[in-house]
Amino acid sequence: MADQIVKESIRRVLPDEAVKRALKGFAPPEGKLILVSAGKAAWQMAAAAVQVLPRIDSGMVITKYGHVKGKLPGILCKEAGHPVPDENGFLATQEALELVRPLGEEDSVLFLLSGGGSALFEDPLIPGDELQEITRQLLSCGADITEINTIRKRLSGVKGGRFAEACAPAKVYSIVLSDVLGDPLDMIASGPACPDPTTCEQAKGIARRYRLKVSDEAEALFGQETPKSLNNVKTQITGSVRELCSAAQSACEKLGFATVMLTDRLCCEAKEAGSFLASIARSHAGEKQPLAFIAGGETVVHLKGNGKGGRNQELALSAADGISGLKNAAVFSVGSDGTDGPTDAAGGYVDGDTCGALKEKGLDIRQVLEENDAYTALEAVEGLIITGPTGTNVNDVSIALVWH
Amino acid sequence: MADQIVKESIRRVLPDEAVKRALKGFAPPEGKLILVSAGKAAWQMAAAAVQVLPRIDSGMVITKYGHVKGKLPGILCKEAGHPVPDENGFLATQEALELVRPLGEEDSVLFLLSGGGSALFEDPLIPGDELQEITRQLLSCGADITEINTIRKRLSGVKGGRFAEACAPAKVYSIVLSDVLGDPLDMIASGPACPDPTTCEQAKGIARRYRLKVSDEAEALFGQETPKSLNNVKTQITGSVRELCSAAQSACEKLGFATVMLTDRLCCEAKEAGSFLASIARSHAGEKQPLAFIAGGETVVHLKGNGKGGRNQELALSAADGISGLKNAAVFSVGSDGTDGPTDAAGGYVDGDTCGALKEKGLDIRQVLEENDAYTALEAVEGLIITGPTGTNVNDVSIALVWH
Repeated sequence: MADQIVKESIRRVLPDEAVKRALKGFAPPEGKLILVSAGKAAWQMAAAAVQVLPRIDSGMVITKYGHVKGKLPGILCKEAGHPVPDENGFLATQEALELVRPLGEEDSVLFLLSGGGSALFEDPLIPGDELQEITRQLLSCGADITEINTIRKRLSGVKGGRFAEACAPAKVYSIVLSDVLGDPLDMIASGPACPDPTTCEQAKGIARRYRLKVSDEAEALFGQETPKSLNNVKTQITGSVRELCSAAQSACEKLGFATVMLTDRLCCEAKEAGSFLASIARSHAGEKQPLAFIAGGETVVHLKGNGKGGRNQELALSAADGISGLKNAAVFSVGSDGTDGPTDAAGGYVDGDTCGALKEKGLDIRQVLEENDAYTALEAVEGLIITGPTGTNVNDVSIALVWH
Repeated sequence: MADQIVKESIRRVLPDEAVKRALKGFAPPEGKLILVSAGKAAWQMAAAAVQVLPRIDSGMVITKYGHVKGKLPGILCKEAGHPVPDENGFLATQEALELVRPLGEEDSVLFLLSGGGSALFEDPLIPGDELQEITRQLLSCGADITEINTIRKRLSGVKGGRFAEACAPAKVYSIVLSDVLGDPLDMIASGPACPDPTTCEQAKGIARRYRLKVSDEAEALFGQETPKSLNNVKTQITGSVRELCSAAQSACEKLGFATVMLTDRLCCEAKEAGSFLASIARSHAGEKQPLAFIAGGETVVHLKGNGKGGRNQELALSAADGISGLKNAAVFSVGSDGTDGPTDAAGGYVDGDTCGALKEKGLDIRQVLEENDAYTALEAVEGLIITGPTGTNVNDVSIALVWH
């Protein structure tokens, strides 16, 4: 049952499925159609577009080293550095800019963006060394991610809406595979095709507040405004954790569960989320109507031990005690990328029998969690969920099921 | 809004309200009616019974020192040691046993039980010193609460259903004000009027396993079985956290919120529960239908700092960041006893403005939580919920509200 829910949920957020779904709203232009795809899933997203669109005139894929899976007709596929950007990424981004700059009003750019795009799709307006040094200063003085992005958008030729500006007057149809909770478009890869809500005033204020040491060149860039509105862009968010949750919801409903969508913003400690879901399950187990409580997001693990595991496995294992002995409850959690922590499992599954089974194997849940060794414990009781790498990454989904 | 919900929820679980409601199902006997009330709320519960019943022939209240609030007609009110039992409690319990032993089939015992009853209502069958020593051995060898109770029930003249046995052939109408999550009747005060599911075999097994050192007298008692069924007892659980939640549910519905009852078993870390509830609120804020998500239980705080606060205040404060900036969400949490931790507040309230208000006062939530100083922070932004001591104790309720 859990396996089926997991499989169906992840299928809906695979890059190719997600791109194909998002392209249903896309009308190919009269003029040229250029594809630009950046991020860790850039190749899969581009391949899906190639498959369903009648023609793409030319294009560019920029993805992480080792992530190009073959040739795509008419499209240049480049690999570059991630998470630390490198020259190959800068060069490929410039080539992409050269592809879109000459376009006219009747042309369109299909812009596909996935996680990792911030490093892979970058055209620094100052030398790479200084960019790194400024980022270092910002991090060490405690600036938050919004402040860092406010500064970095002004030092880039593509971030903060500037890529879409470079495409104008051509139209941009942007499909974003979101890996950031809440889908803040201007945050995902620093929003190359998204109007920038931050201002020069704010950037200068941040530079003053943290006493940033920058070159005159960078100083001048802080005064160059990013676009505040973009009338040539249409954006479609796809394959976000929200879609993962709603796919899980459909899968549960198909199996006869009424569903309660709790959140798509889960971000607390993994094992406490497990305890919370278990207490929900225990309160509802045995009710007439089978129920599925769904929580999407990305929980946190504070490593203390040297064991093997991941946040989804810890979440599931932590729920075992709270539902122990119930004949009609289960809790499971899975990462959509199929690799939970540094393991070959996507997540974990527990039900009312798990605690007893662990005890029989001489395993104490509390001790296992202290050692962050959820993998070993779940493996012993056949509680691992294994999917293999899925090729997508839209966070996790955790589900508490109860039935009669 | 929150204040109103809190007030109405707690009112429903006050001992007098709860007892009066539970007594609606009680038919006074043809014969004598004896009242025995034990626990921290024993006096209030007895006073409520006196108020609504046409007559009580005689009775006994056993409560904590300082908890008798006045005379009750025909009823002896005794105070005794809690949480450590003392001679006064043992003597009062014996007097209660003497009241009920002579009763006949046409008589009834109204047995009112509240939190603290385990220490206050006790008739040790071995000397108090040995009872303490055995408990100490059990605790130090890591026995769990079920194992400890299995042993202790056999060393008591009232626990494990033995009080109801002493009442027979008189009928026992037992009203339990539950302070244990899940209302396990045999656990609340070790179940004086509840059939005992544990056996002599188990008791002997525990004694062997942990190599308990006990007198021959105690050893012999391990072999005396507790009642496995009691056909003279009717039990009504009242004022449990479940009722607290359902009162909160009614109060929210009256204000136009559709409600989602999450759990009445919440037991995770307070601040993580706050984060979870905030992520639920953030995902639903702005939806057409105003929603209230309700979680009852008793969260945990691991003290690290020297600040002032309680689990409900920590839970609320921890939700502030997750709902920051929202114009249509609030999270609050309150202890039904009106005293959250060692403070004069019952709990805390936060909404989308709280984070900003804290920042203005120079308060950093993360740091405040590190110091377990939620009281000070919430006080600064008028986020404390103050009810004063309520006279009941049925755990806590935490609520996330969202509206359009």
